[in-house]
Amino acid sequence: MQEEVTAAGNEISDSFRAAKHRSDQVLAELDKNPSRYTMLTGDRPTGRLHLGHYFGSIRERVQMQNRGVHTNIVIADYQVITDRDTTEHIRDNVLNLVLDYLAAGIDPKKTMIFTHSSTPAENQLLLPFLSLVTEAELHRNPTVKAEMEASGHTLTGLLLTYPVHQACDILFCKANVVPIGKDNLPHVELTRTIARRFDERYPGQAPVFPEPDAILSDTPEIPGLDGRKMSKSYGNSIMLGATAEETAKLIRKSPTDSERRITFDPVNRPQVSALLTTAGLVTDRRPEDIAEEIGDAGSGALKAYVTKSVNEFLAPHRERRAELAKDMDTVRDILVEGNKRANQIAEETLDQVRSAMGMRY
Amino acid sequence: MQEEVTAAGNEISDSFRAAKHRSDQVLAELDKNPSRYTMLTGDRPTGRLHLGHYFGSIRERVQMQNRGVHTNIVIADYQVITDRDTTEHIRDNVLNLVLDYLAAGIDPKKTMIFTHSSTPAENQLLLPFLSLVTEAELHRNPTVKAEMEASGHTLTGLLLTYPVHQACDILFCKANVVPIGKDNLPHVELTRTIARRFDERYPGQAPVFPEPDAILSDTPEIPGLDGRKMSKSYGNSIMLGATAEETAKLIRKSPTDSERRITFDPVNRPQVSALLTTAGLVTDRRPEDIAEEIGDAGSGALKAYVTKSVNEFLAPHRERRAELAKDMDTVRDILVEGNKRANQIAEETLDQVRSAMGMRY
Repeated sequence: MQEEVTAAGNEISDSFRAAKHRSDQVLAELDKNPSRYTMLTGDRPTGRLHLGHYFGSIRERVQMQNRGVHTNIVIADYQVITDRDTTEHIRDNVLNLVLDYLAAGIDPKKTMIFTHSSTPAENQLLLPFLSLVTEAELHRNPTVKAEMEASGHTLTGLLLTYPVHQACDILFCKANVVPIGKDNLPHVELTRTIARRFDERYPGQAPVFPEPDAILSDTPEIPGLDGRKMSKSYGNSIMLGATAEETAKLIRKSPTDSERRITFDPVNRPQVSALLTTAGLVTDRRPEDIAEEIGDAGSGALKAYVTKSVNEFLAPHRERRAELAKDMDTVRDILVEGNKRANQIAEETLDQVRSAMGMRY
Repeated sequence: MQEEVTAAGNEISDSFRAAKHRSDQVLAELDKNPSRYTMLTGDRPTGRLHLGHYFGSIRERVQMQNRGVHTNIVIADYQVITDRDTTEHIRDNVLNLVLDYLAAGIDPKKTMIFTHSSTPAENQLLLPFLSLVTEAELHRNPTVKAEMEASGHTLTGLLLTYPVHQACDILFCKANVVPIGKDNLPHVELTRTIARRFDERYPGQAPVFPEPDAILSDTPEIPGLDGRKMSKSYGNSIMLGATAEETAKLIRKSPTDSERRITFDPVNRPQVSALLTTAGLVTDRRPEDIAEEIGDAGSGALKAYVTKSVNEFLAPHRERRAELAKDMDTVRDILVEGNKRANQIAEETLDQVRSAMGMRY
């Protein structure tokens, strides 16, 4: 999801190691038979996508799509109001997400893009699923707690129950793989629990739902330009859809330190190192090598290099984006079509759910 | 709802008195302009309807319908699993509810009958509505707590959130009156809060939702034949759809006391008094007068009178019921048609909700 919040405790636990091991196994199997896999990912439409999203998830989605995995992207518009009281700019944010997906290589013929607010049949699953989890289980979720604290908002009924809604996202389209950061491991675990309990409680000829596997990304967290976590409020992220000039200005303004010689040292020199990490990602080079190359030329030279390499990297994306933006009706139609398909798939799943529960009248 | 549980504390509070006063005012207005009112009531399809349901709610629904109030009945099939792990016999229970409604005089041309599981657009409202209530507000609901305790089941996510789902039932069809027992006052209060908050947070040209009023019934709670609360597990209720023979047998088996003279004394003689109350309701006589009439003839004579009067009262209902039951396809079609209409109305409301929230793509 677009806005991730770090759950309490960052230590690599045994359960994380087990999850990573399982994830590696699944990825190896997926490489052999991609068409056996259905993937669900998504974003909260709270703003524009930035480089962190690109390297953290968008790139992987495009790769998965192109390998033949059945890919689905939910734009979680109702999740905007889990911890805020307004839906300001929501339409704009949603359509710009679609623009960025398309510009990044998402092919709507292969990947279904849809919004929560347009897919009633998907949302209905929330009701039977809520009967399968206890209130205590909802409260025990560490990510929900961390998100509530980070937002400074009262815990709403929607934030408390959103992991169950995420289970609806994953299960309505029978996704069996879910790429996530480790903060979302509890959500995938809950989804597996819901799938299992549903099929135990309402057994039919075949289980209605798969038990999905988490795919844990290998991509390290990408810092903001100032070395802090990327955040809209810090103004430290390079938007995919920004202009080259806006990007240059943002990099020019980003803080460095007083030491002239450029070295890669994330602990002691977070700001300079963040610039090097960014340049490394977009050029596919090691940050250390870039630092070595710039050496005594100082932060001005570093910033020039970052600006040039980021803008070069994003130029094709931005060109496609600008081209697509000329015809927003088509962008909108892609979403409308995705919503229609998602509803059809959800209606089919819902019919299986009704049959299993004996609720066909 | 069919299975009501008494919330902690039975004292008549000031807030209850205020609610009753308001309810009386609304009823007076409704008498003058019934067509300005839309009503929502419903049942949990956990079994068959009995005399308690008839006098407690079904009769009033038919009266409201015939006065020209827009009447809607939800068969809350998903609420069966708020506090149990099975949906056994659900289809049978649902279709028998429809049968009883029709036999009691509900006219599907005037009253919309629908089930939760068939109306995705209604259920979707749960998501924006959950964002408008806090987890603390969900926990504060005394009826939810009482129901959880009565069921002996762990508190599920669905039981915790069902008052919000009830707000969806009421608001999707823009009901402005909701006939309830006083245990459900907190639910109507929550519905009013949700309606108000939605319109404050997403103001449009006109409010999307009305703030519905509770109509508090004057009907006293009808005891089971043994003087205890009517309950399927006690086997102390007269089913509307039972045969005359089954009814006679049930009344014959119902316990009385050793005193021969029949008197109406609910506190000291709950069993005899329950039989008198039942006879009084179906004959529209005072229980005291019936007791006086039977006098020293004893409980055998009382039971004979109760059996005769109940069976006479229910004969037309049972006759219509048996006639309708010959063509269950038509009964089913009535529900399918109601579900279709409910979905259409919900889609219209959902479109207004999407517009207000800026989620039209």
